[in-house]
This record gives sequence, C-alpha cells and structure tokens, in this order.
Amino acid sequence: MVSEKMKTFMVGSSVIRAMFEEGKKMAKKYGKENVFDYSLGNPSVEPPKEVKEALIKVINETAPNELHGYPNNSGFEDVRLHLAEKSNRVHGTHYNENNYVITTGAAAALNITLKVILEPQDEVIVFAPFFGEYRNYICNYDGVIVPVLSDTKTFQPDMKKFEDAINKKTKGVIINTPNNPTGVIYSADTLTQMSEILVRKEKEFGHAIYIISDEPYRELVYGDAVLPFVPDFYDDTFIAYSYSKSLSIPGERIGYVCANTKMEDFETVTEALNIANRIGGFVNAPTIWQRVIPYVSECSVDINIYKKNRDTLYNMLIELGYECIKPDGAFYLFPKTLIEDDVAFCQAAKEFNLLIVPGSSFGCPGFCRIAYCVSYETIINSKESFKKLKDKFSK
Amino acid sequence: MVSEKMKTFMVGSSVIRAMFEEGKKMAKKYGKENVFDYSLGNPSVEPPKEVKEALIKVINETAPNELHGYPNNSGFEDVRLHLAEKSNRVHGTHYNENNYVITTGAAAALNITLKVILEPQDEVIVFAPFFGEYRNYICNYDGVIVPVLSDTKTFQPDMKKFEDAINKKTKGVIINTPNNPTGVIYSADTLTQMSEILVRKEKEFGHAIYIISDEPYRELVYGDAVLPFVPDFYDDTFIAYSYSKSLSIPGERIGYVCANTKMEDFETVTEALNIANRIGGFVNAPTIWQRVIPYVSECSVDINIYKKNRDTLYNMLIELGYECIKPDGAFYLFPKTLIEDDVAFCQAAKEFNLLIVPGSSFGCPGFCRIAYCVSYETIINSKESFKKLKDKFSK
Repeated sequence: MVSEKMKTFMVGSSVIRAMFEEGKKMAKKYGKENVFDYSLGNPSVEPPKEVKEALIKVINETAPNELHGYPNNSGFEDVRLHLAEKSNRVHGTHYNENNYVITTGAAAALNITLKVILEPQDEVIVFAPFFGEYRNYICNYDGVIVPVLSDTKTFQPDMKKFEDAINKKTKGVIINTPNNPTGVIYSADTLTQMSEILVRKEKEFGHAIYIISDEPYRELVYGDAVLPFVPDFYDDTFIAYSYSKSLSIPGERIGYVCANTKMEDFETVTEALNIANRIGGFVNAPTIWQRVIPYVSECSVDINIYKKNRDTLYNMLIELGYECIKPDGAFYLFPKTLIEDDVAFCQAAKEFNLLIVPGSSFGCPGFCRIAYCVSYETIINSKESFKKLKDKFSK
Repeated sequence: MVSEKMKTFMVGSSVIRAMFEEGKKMAKKYGKENVFDYSLGNPSVEPPKEVKEALIKVINETAPNELHGYPNNSGFEDVRLHLAEKSNRVHGTHYNENNYVITTGAAAALNITLKVILEPQDEVIVFAPFFGEYRNYICNYDGVIVPVLSDTKTFQPDMKKFEDAINKKTKGVIINTPNNPTGVIYSADTLTQMSEILVRKEKEFGHAIYIISDEPYRELVYGDAVLPFVPDFYDDTFIAYSYSKSLSIPGERIGYVCANTKMEDFETVTEALNIANRIGGFVNAPTIWQRVIPYVSECSVDINIYKKNRDTLYNMLIELGYECIKPDGAFYLFPKTLIEDDVAFCQAAKEFNLLIVPGSSFGCPGFCRIAYCVSYETIINSKESFKKLKDKFSK
C-alpha cells in the first residue's frame, strides 16, 4: 500500500535503476573490463590523503561524546565559522556562522531550501538539460518544475526563454554550474543577464525569486577556466554545496547550504533552514565529517586525472566524428546523439557494451551523457565501441 | 519569504528552542555546575570503546573510494545482511538484506516510512505523551496526527480510546517503546490487544494499517525487564532504529528501517523505501558508519550508569513526595507536576535552576519530563532544588 505520490516517484525512477541493473548483468556476462560503464557520476579519483589523516586525528583527539554527540541542527558553530572565513577570504564576502547550515550533502541542502521557500504550486525554473533529481526535490514540497531549454550550441541558459518562463508563481531558479550533465560553466555574462532579469521580475511580482546554485562540481574546473561566484551577481542566492566530488566522499553525505546575507528575510530564512534540517529528518550532518571539514577544506582530489580523461575522451569523440562541445568542468561530456531518438541511440550503444545515458533523462533529447569519472583505461579501451557505434549510424 | 507551512513548523519549534537558549544563559549566570539541565535527551554515557576501534579499523583497512563511495541507496548489501542475520538469531525472524534500508538515524527512517505510506489527510495515531517530532514528520507528508491519551496510571496505551480513534483514514500507528518521555516499555499484553484491534480494523476498512515502532531506546532496558519484539505480534510492522542511544553517537546519524516480511505489499513497500531515501534527500546513510556497524552491533553503552541514575532520581523524587511511576527503560522519568498547570510548574522550577520539560510538549499536560542522561553528580546536587520546588507548592 504505497501512496499515489510515491508511486509517481517510483515510475520516474525505474529508467536509471534499469540501466544500473543492466550494467551489473553485462559486467557479469562479458567481464567487467569489457563493459564501458559511463552511466554513473560516482567519483573515480582517490580522496586526498588529508581526508584519512583528518579522520584519524579527530577520532584520536576529540572526546567521544563531544565528537559523536548532538550538535546544533545547523552544525557545529566553529565549523560554520570556518566555512564563513574561507568564503570571506576567497570571495570577499562578510559571512559568519549564521550564513551556513551544514547538511547531509547537497541533496539535503537543496531539499531544506525548497522546503523553506515553496508554497504548493509555486514554480521553480531549471535549465534543461538538468539533474533529474531536481524534479523529485521540487515535487517533495508540492512545487512545480519548469524546465527551460538551454541554448544547445553553448549550453548556457537561453535568456529569452528564461524571461518568458517567469511569472508570479516563480519562487526559485536552480542553476548547476559546472553543470551535470553538460560540464559547462555558466559565464559571468550569463549570470549578469540572469540577475538583471530576476531583479526586474522581483520588482514586477513583488516577492523574492531565489537563485539556488547547486555547486557539487565547484572544484572540478579545468585549465584557465574561472567559476564566477553567484552572490557577486545576485543577492537572493543560496549555494548548495557538497564535498562528494571535491573530496571523493559521496557516500558520507557532507555539504552545506549557504544563504547570502543580502537576501530578502535573511534571518527568518536561516532560522527556517535550521528547523527544516531538523524536522525534515536530517537532524544534522554526521558530526565526524563536520569535524573533518576544517582540516580538508583547502584540499581537493587530483583534478588533473579528470582533465586527462576529459581531453582524451573529447579528442577521441571528435576524431571519430561525434559532435560535442568541450566543457570546462565537472566530469561529463554531453555529445549529440547520431540519431534524433537518444533513447534508441543509447539502447544501440549497449550492443557495443557502452553504457551512456539518454539526454531525455535530463530533459534534453537528442544528446547523451558520458560520465568520464572512470579509469583512463576504460576510456582508451572503449574507442573501438564508440567507433562501431558511429559506423552503425553512418551507413 | 518563508512558506506558510514552514512558518507553522517554526511556531511549534520555538518553545523547546527557548528552553535551550535559557539553559545556556542560566549556565553562564549561575555556573554550569549550579544549573540542573534535565531538558535534553543527549546521551551522557561514553560510547563503548569498540566504536573507536572499529572506526580506525575500517579507515585503515578499506580502500578509500570503496569506503567513501556511493553505496546502494538502501545501504551496503553485506551490512544489511548482517542486520538481518542478527535479527534472525535474536528474534527468530527469516529476514535478509531486502528487509532493511540503512538510514541517517531513526528520524530519516520514520520520514521515509511515512513518505511511502501516507496519502494527504491520512491519519496516523500516536499515544500521548509522545515525542513532539512525530507531529512534524507526519505533517511533512500532509498526514494528520491523531494523539490518543495513554492510561496515565501505567502509560500503557488505552485500548478503548485507541480502537475508537481508528477510522478508514487511519494508515499508521507510531509506537515508541521504551518510551520517550515516560520510559515505559509496552507490555506483551498491550501489543497483543493492539494487534487484535488492528487486524480487525484492517479487515473492516480493507487496507493495511501499519505499526511503525520507533525503537531508539531498545537497548536501554533495566533489570529483568524484557522488551517484546513487535513483529511477533503484528505482521504489518516497520521498525525504526537508531544507534544514537545504544552507542551514544546521536550526532552521526546512523540507523535503519526494517520492514517485516509478512507485511502487505512487502516488495513494493521496500522498493519504495529505497527510492524515498534517495529522493527525500537522504540519498544513503554515511558509509563510514555503515561499515562500522558490523563490528559494534553487539555492543552497547554501559547501561548500569543510566540505571543508577534512574534509581537514584526515582528514589529521591518519591522520598520528596513526588508522584511518579518507575519505568524500565530509556533515560526519562515522567512525574506528575505538583500543580495542574505543567507549563507554570516547569517555569517555577527554573527559580531553582531546574530545567525540566512540560508534559504539554508531549501532548500530556499535568506531567513533566526529566531526562536523566546527566552526570550522577547533577542528580545528587539537584536534590535541594527538587525539595524547594516541592515546598513551594506544598504551602
């Protein structure tokens, strides 16, 4: 006896689940090394050694009841202050501990933010292609997701379509930069235009429209690319962060939401975030990881490994005749599928033991996502399969 | 711009928050040792030494990407199997890994269970006095909480009132044994009667009515008392468990929900729990703690420390003329307040630096909760204050 709403969630979930199960079956049948599983965004690079050192340190040096006891629902004050000081140093903000709620990853950060701001039927804009979980998170609070297709040449948001999509029900905009599934970084120009539109629309409709900037890939930026800091462009901004990718610890569920001080109703909103974290059932982020953060917040996985994967895979795809932009961040490529029907295309890819995800799963048909957080060998060894796939559709 | 629903949650939260803040202020003013803070259920006994040993072991012996990477949303299969085998050994069940979803504590376990079973306006019965968060958790999924007052002589549920409260909207019953705030263990007789009523009502209304047994205090049982195993009495049972109290690690957020195999729609329900854990924003329980569980699942804090606190405080209260039953579990006493107005009574207690929580906060006015998870010295030193409080209302 599962609720109707839950059944809707379950239907949406079965596609990815099916692929996951199929991948496992294929690995069994053909051998793990002969299956090129590009389907999952599970970090492949090792956590920096400082993570282990910090874990051992806090375990050995903290009184157990203090280390494992209840913190404030928003997290330990000194850890939040540490986060604020880092932001102030790097971004010139004037944050303090009150700007932060430490959460069980970005997923919880997004959920408590949406829980705080959404009335039923309120609309939240997302830019397609987008991370599919946004649909569920928004639905959790009876909000309505409004996908707005990006410019598929650049995968920057289309400003005309964006402005047209805003109405009096619009309460938030989720952006994700560097982006899953495209890897693209939103430019300063994009953020400037977005801010201008939102400021105008806030005035027109007489209420705040928040940007919720989902930034788990913030540290995965390659070459000379620079990631603009969203609160520099727009006051009503939440940042949802996770250490999952920067430290390769996605199973540990540690991140935060940071509310920009200049946002409307800052004090009420941050008090609400604290309460939402508690009553949503998260209660607080795992305390051992809260204590680890100050020791590792300057560390990162070796992003050169991902960069090498990106370059190798990108060059290989271009050489084989695929059409794809070269993004500056995250660990995804998002090439055009060789036929219009991206679901059929990804189905066909399985013939060659290639597991890639249809763009439709991200609200953007005609493309597919390749998660290159895999071993370098997987990329090299998959060339033949990508070639066969290309040949299949070049006849 | 906080949503209306969120504002309701915030109003309800302010009472406990106010007491927490007041406690901190009082400690500052009078010195920590002169304030007897019985307000919080924060475990005072040290975690068993095996917790630290297991943490170090899993950190040193597990490959980092494996230790910190994404598990199945329900948790590592081998860890779930371990939980099943323990249940089979101790309770004679025939569970396997599919019965379990490992969660970020009992709070997440309760939330995903309610998310799975509740349609909007569905009713969930709780027995007053009850843990206040149940109200929020049920409200998260637009359910309606239906408090049914227990027999205040024994704090066992009142079966007549229980049966009367069930109607076609009733989808679940949350029980909490050993109980917060009374410390009482529900007897086998209680569970037998409850089951008889529910089986009859399920038939009458043609759908499952689930018992959700919230058991974070399961290991805190004193003397010869025995805690009955709920699925022995009733098929449609979920168990929500947390290691917070048994291991004194409440900040770490690790527990599970266990769905009884014989429940209606077992397979769909457990699949839904897995998905609810993901989309609810929990994603999975912290992996390092999942890996620790198999090494510590037979361990427990030294419950003799709590037992000594219970005996000392209980005897002291009775000697001073308070009226209180002597419960067999958890770390709470729930005496009658000396005046009808329990809020005024707890306010008066503050004059003597005693922080205790009004029964009204648990839906049971005329009583107050004393959380004796404090140092033994606190109990001894608070005697004079309890005496003065008694004298104040004996004139």
